[in-house]
Amino acid sequence: MTSKSLDFALGCPMPLPERDRIQLGHGSGGRMSANLLKERFLPAFPGEVLRQLGDGASLILGTREIVVSTDSFVVTPLEFPGGDIGDLAVNGTVNDVAMMGAVPRYLCAGFILEEGLPFEVLDRVVASMSAAAAAAGVVLVAGDTKVVERGKADGMFINTTGIGELQEGFRPAPHLARPGDAVLVSGPLGCHGMAVMGARDGLDFRLEIESDTAPLLSLVAALREAVGEGVHVLRDPTRGGLASALNEIAQASGVGVVLEDGVIPIPGAVAAACEVLGLDPLYVANEGVLVAIVDGEMASGALEAMRRDPLGREAVRVGTVTADHPGLVVLRTGVGGTRIVDLLPGDQLPRIC
Amino acid sequence: MTSKSLDFALGCPMPLPERDRIQLGHGSGGRMSANLLKERFLPAFPGEVLRQLGDGASLILGTREIVVSTDSFVVTPLEFPGGDIGDLAVNGTVNDVAMMGAVPRYLCAGFILEEGLPFEVLDRVVASMSAAAAAAGVVLVAGDTKVVERGKADGMFINTTGIGELQEGFRPAPHLARPGDAVLVSGPLGCHGMAVMGARDGLDFRLEIESDTAPLLSLVAALREAVGEGVHVLRDPTRGGLASALNEIAQASGVGVVLEDGVIPIPGAVAAACEVLGLDPLYVANEGVLVAIVDGEMASGALEAMRRDPLGREAVRVGTVTADHPGLVVLRTGVGGTRIVDLLPGDQLPRIC
Repeated sequence: MTSKSLDFALGCPMPLPERDRIQLGHGSGGRMSANLLKERFLPAFPGEVLRQLGDGASLILGTREIVVSTDSFVVTPLEFPGGDIGDLAVNGTVNDVAMMGAVPRYLCAGFILEEGLPFEVLDRVVASMSAAAAAAGVVLVAGDTKVVERGKADGMFINTTGIGELQEGFRPAPHLARPGDAVLVSGPLGCHGMAVMGARDGLDFRLEIESDTAPLLSLVAALREAVGEGVHVLRDPTRGGLASALNEIAQASGVGVVLEDGVIPIPGAVAAACEVLGLDPLYVANEGVLVAIVDGEMASGALEAMRRDPLGREAVRVGTVTADHPGLVVLRTGVGGTRIVDLLPGDQLPRIC
Repeated sequence: MTSKSLDFALGCPMPLPERDRIQLGHGSGGRMSANLLKERFLPAFPGEVLRQLGDGASLILGTREIVVSTDSFVVTPLEFPGGDIGDLAVNGTVNDVAMMGAVPRYLCAGFILEEGLPFEVLDRVVASMSAAAAAAGVVLVAGDTKVVERGKADGMFINTTGIGELQEGFRPAPHLARPGDAVLVSGPLGCHGMAVMGARDGLDFRLEIESDTAPLLSLVAALREAVGEGVHVLRDPTRGGLASALNEIAQASGVGVVLEDGVIPIPGAVAAACEVLGLDPLYVANEGVLVAIVDGEMASGALEAMRRDPLGREAVRVGTVTADHPGLVVLRTGVGGTRIVDLLPGDQLPRIC
């Protein structure tokens, strides 16, 4: 076994072809990520829970059901307009727990630090995590720190695992979308991805865009109170953006989704930056937006409830679930045409979270 | 905020002094790790649970108490005699949960993969995790995969979080050592650390040492059955070895520990390799050994129970807890002298787990 790993460390005389190696796209949240999971991880691990492929997992301890979710954060740069890896690592995991319909209570954090990381950067990130945890009402209960040599990591990576409690009679899940349901988004799309992009070295213009990183707990609570079990699916469209989230839901539920082009809320600055960079905003990551798929008859009540929350002021219905074209998401354009909004194979924007 | 992080990425014109940066020793499990935790993490996060500073945390969900533990694994090389980062990541976390007196049930795993990692390496590591999870009786319930560019990580890092159930009437904890207690170790020391060391590039001799990585669950169950609440403290002496584990216990319990030099089980090959490399085996990591601090009158029953388990065949009493020199661990040498076995400031062996 050892010799194989040394081969890798030293570089093989005959380099392995790309198809036999991990590529950046495997971390994209797109088709390559899905294939990596299906082909290399799922076959190795038995159990139904992992196969739910939700934002987290619900599991039984004794007679009690709890929700857990884990996420590693590798965003670069570590700090960007509107946030940093610290609040991102808290909000990202807290939101995944919330998308399962649970209230997050506890957080574990594992830090991988690169030798040479300035304490002042670490201190800012930790302060930011602390504030985010307080805002989300979660308590950090366990942590771990590892340090690797200079050049063996990129400043800092953070893994967080969140643990939450399910709420009686509220169990949204990716497979529960039904024809006739309304597709709602809680706010403007693409801000997180473009804020991180704009903070990268080498970009020759400054974007006036801030990350939307935020805990979505109050929005979920508002939806639960307003329409309860009328909320069929909740998802935070992070890596891979709205398009990837809806594709996963369409596949999990065996339904189609029709999006109305004109009403999808994309801020002008995001649209302009995406155009310059050749990106499609539907695939750009969000960290403070949720997609709610709700019973069609309850859509206006759900929207009203969301709009009363500061994070949901611009909540809007962007589409409808249909029995047509199961597994596919299509965009109805202004001129009456449609185009398929597919899963991308790989990354538009690597290391966005 | 952004400009600071870019400064770091680009290298400051006036480099920060070492004392203002993360150093390898901060990941050692020694004094520098303890200071990092006390000075930079604990002040940021409120709550009693984190301050227990155990191998994991016990927490309340509704009316139920559960145990969680999180750990990141950055071992290099990824594969070494007797194991790889995969079984290490499962056993390490499962053992931390077990050291809290709980039975591990569920596992979450977060992977950070370097672009270019050969699938064959990933597949072997995943297979090894799968086998380790099955052996430990834990189910993987949630996972996450991120990919970073070539040169931004070192092959693969894995974070695991374990969740377990406490057992009625069995609550060992680092602060429960009492004068008169016996200090037992379940088997030979130093094998994991020296096996990894021996697998590194650049070492000009081959060691015939295999890692001891293993789940300690059956040993814990045997101890629980044999002496129950007579087990005061359980600890797996990983990073920092037996010396660091006992120092932490001595400090948490406000007691002293006296070790008997002649009886500490150090295999000949480990002793020889440590001598060549200038290392002290008391500080070398173990991944399949536990330290049990038990009521002195129950020591022989505890030893008998451990010795019936294959992992505990060579279990032995290595010392005694005393009211003298609280917070200190001393080694009584053959010639009647004693020396203080202190926490090391930093690393003997970085990236051993």
